[in-house]
Amino acid sequence: MPGVPSTRFVYLGPEGTFTEQALRTIPAAERGTRTPARSVPEALDAVRAGDADAALVPLENSIGGQVGVTLDELADGAPLVITREVVIPVQFVLGARAELALDGIRSIAAHPQASAQCRRWLQAHVPSATVVDALSNGAAAQAAAAGEYDAAICAPIGAGRERLAVLAKDIADHPDAVTRFALVSRPGPPPQPTGNDLTTLAVYIAHDRVGALLAVLTELAVRGVNLTRIESRPTGERLGRYVFFLDCSGHVAEVRMGEALQGLRRVCAEVRFLGSYPRAGADRPAPTPPGASDADFADAAAWLARIRAGEPS
Amino acid sequence: MPGVPSTRFVYLGPEGTFTEQALRTIPAAERGTRTPARSVPEALDAVRAGDADAALVPLENSIGGQVGVTLDELADGAPLVITREVVIPVQFVLGARAELALDGIRSIAAHPQASAQCRRWLQAHVPSATVVDALSNGAAAQAAAAGEYDAAICAPIGAGRERLAVLAKDIADHPDAVTRFALVSRPGPPPQPTGNDLTTLAVYIAHDRVGALLAVLTELAVRGVNLTRIESRPTGERLGRYVFFLDCSGHVAEVRMGEALQGLRRVCAEVRFLGSYPRAGADRPAPTPPGASDADFADAAAWLARIRAGEPS
Amino acid sequence: MPGVPSTRFVYLGPEGTFTEQALRTIPAAERGTRTPARSVPEALDAVRAGDADAALVPLENSIGGQVGVTLDELADGAPLVITREVVIPVQFVLGARAELALDGIRSIAAHPQASAQCRRWLQAHVPSATVVDALSNGAAAQAAAAGEYDAAICAPIGAGRERLAVLAKDIADHPDAVTRFALVSRPGPPPQPTGNDLTTLAVYIAHDRVGALLAVLTELAVRGVNLTRIESRPTGERLGRYVFFLDCSGHVAEVRMGEALQGLRRVCAEVRFLGSYPRAGADRPAPTPPGASDADFADAAAWLARIRAGEPS
Amino acid sequence: MPGVPSTRFVYLGPEGTFTEQALRTIPAAERGTRTPARSVPEALDAVRAGDADAALVPLENSIGGQVGVTLDELADGAPLVITREVVIPVQFVLGARAELALDGIRSIAAHPQASAQCRRWLQAHVPSATVVDALSNGAAAQAAAAGEYDAAICAPIGAGRERLAVLAKDIADHPDAVTRFALVSRPGPPPQPTGNDLTTLAVYIAHDRVGALLAVLTELAVRGVNLTRIESRPTGERLGRYVFFLDCSGHVAEVRMGEALQGLRRVCAEVRFLGSYPRAGADRPAPTPPGASDADFADAAAWLARIRAGEPS
Repeated sequence: MPGVPSTRFVYLGPEGTFTEQALRTIPAAERGTRTPARSVPEALDAVRAGDADAALVPLENSIGGQVGVTLDELADGAPLVITREVVIPVQFVLGARAELALDGIRSIAAHPQASAQCRRWLQAHVPSATVVDALSNGAAAQAAAAGEYDAAICAPIGAGRERLAVLAKDIADHPDAVTRFALVSRPGPPPQPTGNDLTTLAVYIAHDRVGALLAVLTELAVRGVNLTRIESRPTGERLGRYVFFLDCSGHVAEVRMGEALQGLRRVCAEVRFLGSYPRAGADRPAPTPPGASDADFADAAAWLARIRAGEPS
Repeated sequence: MPGVPSTRFVYLGPEGTFTEQALRTIPAAERGTRTPARSVPEALDAVRAGDADAALVPLENSIGGQVGVTLDELADGAPLVITREVVIPVQFVLGARAELALDGIRSIAAHPQASAQCRRWLQAHVPSATVVDALSNGAAAQAAAAGEYDAAICAPIGAGRERLAVLAKDIADHPDAVTRFALVSRPGPPPQPTGNDLTTLAVYIAHDRVGALLAVLTELAVRGVNLTRIESRPTGERLGRYVFFLDCSGHVAEVRMGEALQGLRRVCAEVRFLGSYPRAGADRPAPTPPGASDADFADAAAWLARIRAGEPS
Repeated sequence: MPGVPSTRFVYLGPEGTFTEQALRTIPAAERGTRTPARSVPEALDAVRAGDADAALVPLENSIGGQVGVTLDELADGAPLVITREVVIPVQFVLGARAELALDGIRSIAAHPQASAQCRRWLQAHVPSATVVDALSNGAAAQAAAAGEYDAAICAPIGAGRERLAVLAKDIADHPDAVTRFALVSRPGPPPQPTGNDLTTLAVYIAHDRVGALLAVLTELAVRGVNLTRIESRPTGERLGRYVFFLDCSGHVAEVRMGEALQGLRRVCAEVRFLGSYPRAGADRPAPTPPGASDADFADAAAWLARIRAGEPS
Repeated sequence: MPGVPSTRFVYLGPEGTFTEQALRTIPAAERGTRTPARSVPEALDAVRAGDADAALVPLENSIGGQVGVTLDELADGAPLVITREVVIPVQFVLGARAELALDGIRSIAAHPQASAQCRRWLQAHVPSATVVDALSNGAAAQAAAAGEYDAAICAPIGAGRERLAVLAKDIADHPDAVTRFALVSRPGPPPQPTGNDLTTLAVYIAHDRVGALLAVLTELAVRGVNLTRIESRPTGERLGRYVFFLDCSGHVAEVRMGEALQGLRRVCAEVRFLGSYPRAGADRPAPTPPGASDADFADAAAWLARIRAGEPS
């Protein structure tokens, strides 16, 4: 199973949140141990120290955006690589201790980000209920289960764990909202290519941004490598030094990706390889541009060899 | 005062957090009204509806990363523009009801992001204290003031508001951490150029990312416009549609920025202008590249006029 | 009539060559005076000195290539502009004093370039004839008319002028060979745009070639201006200084061409405008790329004006 | 001796011109046979047919420009490669049968291109002499030696061959004028790299020019390969098909050149390798850009191998 030879898993806790739900979509994690961590750095340090085999941490949320602390932790310190991504829909439910009519609800516990994402639904369906902030989706479910509030906005896994009745499903205003998680391990051979993979890089550049970023993108473009995500992050390290986080379509085992990586290595201040892994979700691979397949590269290499040997080309 | 003719200010609440602290660095806000909002959308909607003149909301945090909800709210709905940025250091303090030796502290209230940012300091100075999660930096300070916990990690403004004694200052592990806020208004003439301005754009592209992004950056580069930040965000709206948030050095009143904006308008699916405003903080402006000053553009325009008229050029 | 208000024409002589033939396709030249010059510099200097209104000189030949002396003379000295191009097929004929069977021909006068272009035809049809070099196509026709040789390879106009019988037509091995001529005048308002125009430029760059040439082409590409020809020429003037001759699709009166010219003016060591004029021959104009029409530029300019004024955009 | 194992040489005749003079700068040609050809195609066909080992033909003249027939002949037909370039100054002399004062000269024989290049000198020093066209520089010298004219403009070699007295040296108006010749052979292993080499390519592209040319140049630029010459030539073959002749700094044996060639092979309609050979003349090699040396490529390849193997990188 690609990227999952692990048995001891750590994840961003607490229990009952979307991260645990994401982890449980991985069969090996179902069979292994699952330990919550208090923070992303704590989770990744457990892997670095050998106390865990893999950590599941959030990379980005389609509502909240990138998770800066995860990016920074991957870019610094002892190297780690992503071996798998997990993308799960942010499907909030409204749960309560027992079945209950919506117009009977007076108080709802919710993490502030969760209530923000369900704002329009709440106005439409429970306009007179008071929303009370909770520290996490898991904590909201616990509070409803304890009877502190009439209901809670939480993840499906949280409702199940607290044996709450689900009064309404899929209540987020953006029905397509997703959160993307990375399963992170110590460096090792990447999972086998599947034909629909992503490669994640942290690329440091030394100088002005637009020229340097153009140079980085050109190294990718001339090898037919496509981007699916780009984020810039400042580095406190030195004045005027920047890092870009790139998700590229393709696998490091492919020739075009290998040549592009070598090009970045040659022209950038520093390149950190953060893993090649199968793409999750329904997105299909970008088609390989003309001239960029492994066969095209092999043809060109054979042609060059004939030229260098002075043979008919 | 550039960008601040307003009198009714709204900000991401609650009171006593870094957003309020940032707002109070603006003289006009000191003189005007300051109303906390429960969420970024609520703050921006107050401006759109005319219930407030300007809203202060977080754009990005050097630890936590971009604030996706702010970006998305600016990119969608009725147009708004940034008229001012405020960058403040994330200087956490440890506060208590009364002066107290650190080794006497058994419990500390803190927002989870705050305790994560002070992790190493806590391990070094109060290793045996129990950290209890609070819903915001302001709530942590209130809990310490109420005697529920021995101390709180909070913003300086929160300690002052709750009359807490400051036991330690600047306790964040990253001493250079900052948060960047945007003061947002309904569209109007931008503040005057200062020579060190930023222009923020949301640029939608329709097709594959690396080629389209190269095209976007090339429109900037050929006019000598530099980037200071770039973020990609998916748009749920239509499959394969992306939006980039760009911060560019320069002001829309400058010729090079104007020509670059027109270029983007011509080649991109959509461009939303999100404001030109003075750069905050110590960063100096990027030097204007050769040939890109207003004088260079004026010289070229005069030369072209002579050619078109058939005069000696 | 575009580009031809002239009455005194000079052309690269001698009489009876393709240049005269090309000149006589211009109606105003039919009505004006037509004076042969001994060389391209002599022809252009006559225009510069006011001794002629326009000069017709060769720019390039599809067999022989660019005419370097013409390019250099246009790039240096007092400015001149091309107001019209003339492209004529290089249709050689075999002429003789009287009708004659091909197998009766023992000697043929021909300019060396002409006999080289008819090499295969000569081998196939008059394999045993001796070819004798002549100084020009016109001189070859004269020698045949004088009875010095049995026949001559010459331009149709030369055969007519010397009243030669045409034994064979279109005898060049490359049936599509053409020569391209430029009608050159002192600077003045360019001819009106026709929708299918060319603009010729000499662009000097100071530094290394591939980067500087990429910058030049990028200035064109971002405004949707296409190239139809490019030639590099060394300049003896200063070490490491190069000049590129560019033919671009479009007219200087068009917005996109104007903006591209201004961009080149800003980033290149020197740009010399060498004229906008109707494209000759059957080539249709390259389609205007999306976003590059005058209407697209006007839309973008109006949008920018609204942004700068703070109006809804 | 690089590129010159040959013994049977053919060159563009007739005898006594600059081409013969250029050939005699090659030691092996001094020892081998030297046969003039009537035209460039005839010279190259002799090599293709095995009747000669190498042909010396002109590539470009700093006054007259590119030699289109040579370019076209190299781009079409059975493959040939350049193994050596020879660059010689165009040093015209004025020769006569015997020593003679300049003001005693009434007639001068000269090839029209030669008299054009000496125009200003002739006006300054022999303003009253009549210049009579000759078919070649060699023919002019012969005519002066035969007493048909008082003097001749010719190449130094032509004056020597006809035992003419040299009345004046270096009489061309452009003292730096040079002609560049190519020594052409059937395909074989290229000469060894010298550290200051050129590689010549013919690159066919199928589509619009500016975009396709940008793509070609980008393939070179990302590998740090510099251009020293570029010419576009139409191809009659198919509508809208173009060929570019490129001279690049570097040798096909170098990694960066090899990778650039492979890139062109992958993205262009056709690439014809026309040889890697030592640069002639005083031009020093362009410095290798940062990250583009063979050592940089080897470092990047080793880094990639470690990543693919899952080793610490």
